[in-house]
Amino acid sequence: MLEGLSAGVVTDVSLTQRITDALDEVESVFRTQLESDFPAVNDLCRHVERYRGKRLRPILTLLSGLAAAGGDPERGLTARHATLGAVIEMIHMATLVHDDVLDEAEVRRRGETVNRLRGNETAVMLGDYLISNAFHLCSSLGDYSLNLDLGAVTNTVCEGELLQLHHRDDLSLDERTYLAIVRRKTASLVGACGRLGARLAGGSPQSEAALEAFGVAAGVAFQIQDDLLDLTGDPEIVGKTLGRDLEKGKLTLPSVLLLASAEAADRDDVLAAIVARDSGMLRTALMRFGAIEATLERARGFVREAKANLEVLPESPARDLLGSLADAVLDRSS
Amino acid sequence: MLEGLSAGVVTDVSLTQRITDALDEVESVFRTQLESDFPAVNDLCRHVERYRGKRLRPILTLLSGLAAAGGDPERGLTARHATLGAVIEMIHMATLVHDDVLDEAEVRRRGETVNRLRGNETAVMLGDYLISNAFHLCSSLGDYSLNLDLGAVTNTVCEGELLQLHHRDDLSLDERTYLAIVRRKTASLVGACGRLGARLAGGSPQSEAALEAFGVAAGVAFQIQDDLLDLTGDPEIVGKTLGRDLEKGKLTLPSVLLLASAEAADRDDVLAAIVARDSGMLRTALMRFGAIEATLERARGFVREAKANLEVLPESPARDLLGSLADAVLDRSS
Repeated sequence: MLEGLSAGVVTDVSLTQRITDALDEVESVFRTQLESDFPAVNDLCRHVERYRGKRLRPILTLLSGLAAAGGDPERGLTARHATLGAVIEMIHMATLVHDDVLDEAEVRRRGETVNRLRGNETAVMLGDYLISNAFHLCSSLGDYSLNLDLGAVTNTVCEGELLQLHHRDDLSLDERTYLAIVRRKTASLVGACGRLGARLAGGSPQSEAALEAFGVAAGVAFQIQDDLLDLTGDPEIVGKTLGRDLEKGKLTLPSVLLLASAEAADRDDVLAAIVARDSGMLRTALMRFGAIEATLERARGFVREAKANLEVLPESPARDLLGSLADAVLDRSS
Repeated sequence: MLEGLSAGVVTDVSLTQRITDALDEVESVFRTQLESDFPAVNDLCRHVERYRGKRLRPILTLLSGLAAAGGDPERGLTARHATLGAVIEMIHMATLVHDDVLDEAEVRRRGETVNRLRGNETAVMLGDYLISNAFHLCSSLGDYSLNLDLGAVTNTVCEGELLQLHHRDDLSLDERTYLAIVRRKTASLVGACGRLGARLAGGSPQSEAALEAFGVAAGVAFQIQDDLLDLTGDPEIVGKTLGRDLEKGKLTLPSVLLLASAEAADRDDVLAAIVARDSGMLRTALMRFGAIEATLERARGFVREAKANLEVLPESPARDLLGSLADAVLDRSS
């Protein structure tokens, strides 16, 4: 993600270098934490490392530290940021591994998923191992309040996932409930990157709140785009199994908006397509009735909201890069 | 578990009352922690509460606190013990919920399992919710070193589970590897009850070590008995789906000992029974070649080891009750 941006928008080479170096440190902490005495466990963890792609959450954690400190290169980032970035990435990896079990997905980041390769049982346990290591690593920061904060966040993430499962095959799912689920299952952790990244940099309560709100809004936009790609993306480009939401009876924003806006007769056709898991028919309806554009407009709204939150922060290259990151959420095709 | 003991061995009524009151507090902390704004989440948690049976781990945590303090009724137990007991019980519940997914079990404590009632997806997420809440609740104790300690324990538990999965259908599994798995997946958490129960009571490092060793050895004995019941128990009495180990290609101590002691010809028959998942034939062989008695003798050895560790502690009713608990591990038929 950073690579793409640094080629285009970012001109601050020292900032890019700083973040790249810190990401190397995140990677090293991540790998060291997961080292086990058992080769079988190490093999699994090495497989999961291949899932790590955009590293959006560690990048956000690092940039939030810098932005909260006003971009002064002598302030902001500490070794603790790299540890926190690794903790949050580990939590994210755990949710990916368990999500793939839930979705019966076979491909992630162009490789086979753990559940596909080693079975659901190993995927469930590997996810648990990642969650456990994330909390263990977080405790190594020596501040119980960070554990308390992140524990509340992961409670919320799980509530979002459970709520989503509860609404499977719920054809009356509305936008408000969709957003309640997305805020919990995805955006709360992205918000934590902003809040805790700022806190570790000694940022003010205002900067913590602003960067949390930035993360939450960007996280919602990211998930909306993810859900859109699941319905309309090219699996070759996205690099993972698509169409699982429809297959699993998970209504997402495009279908919710389509159903809310369609006339009664068309509505019945759309419902029939959803019930029949007919992705071709659903895609056609999404395009015909402008639901893709309507979904993108919602996502753009969240990106605007994210960027508006940056305005209370002092001007800095890190703040600018956060703004570009928010824009990039919608440009991505993978 | 306590009820059965208090009718027989225990004559110290005030100790039993003390533990019973503290267990009520554990229950209350457990329930309060899991309260969610979402009725769907609360329904699931209420279902899991029915799994709570013997409450072995909270009882051990409480008794370890008392035993480390020499049984002085004015010392030892604090409100923190109830919280820690709830944390450890929550971790244990999470492993039960995920184990039932792994084992495709349908019955637990005479009720349907979550995976059976609501599907594997919900069971995976509910287990995650319990793990997350356990760490969150642990952080509320305000001491990061407890999180660090328990995080290392849950890492170990997961390693044990992953190791066990790695050895599925491994017909050459030996006793050493079996015990390495059991020590990690079961005994490490029981050992933590002893160690941390003592620590919260301000016990000496010696009492921490002794109570940890007690818990580890008792935990191994408990798991051996559990594995024996899975092969030879009556599902009506045990109250959960049995025979899953054989069904899932999981070799346990009775089969390991049987294979190690059988002559070549008999060995082939036993291997054939295991490969064919023929529980009747395996049971017959276990009885014929004395493998059940040999397994029980191993379990008795661990109970003796557990009790020997209690000897360094000052004499107290709590210490005596721990000894009785260790004996009770082998008397149980459920």
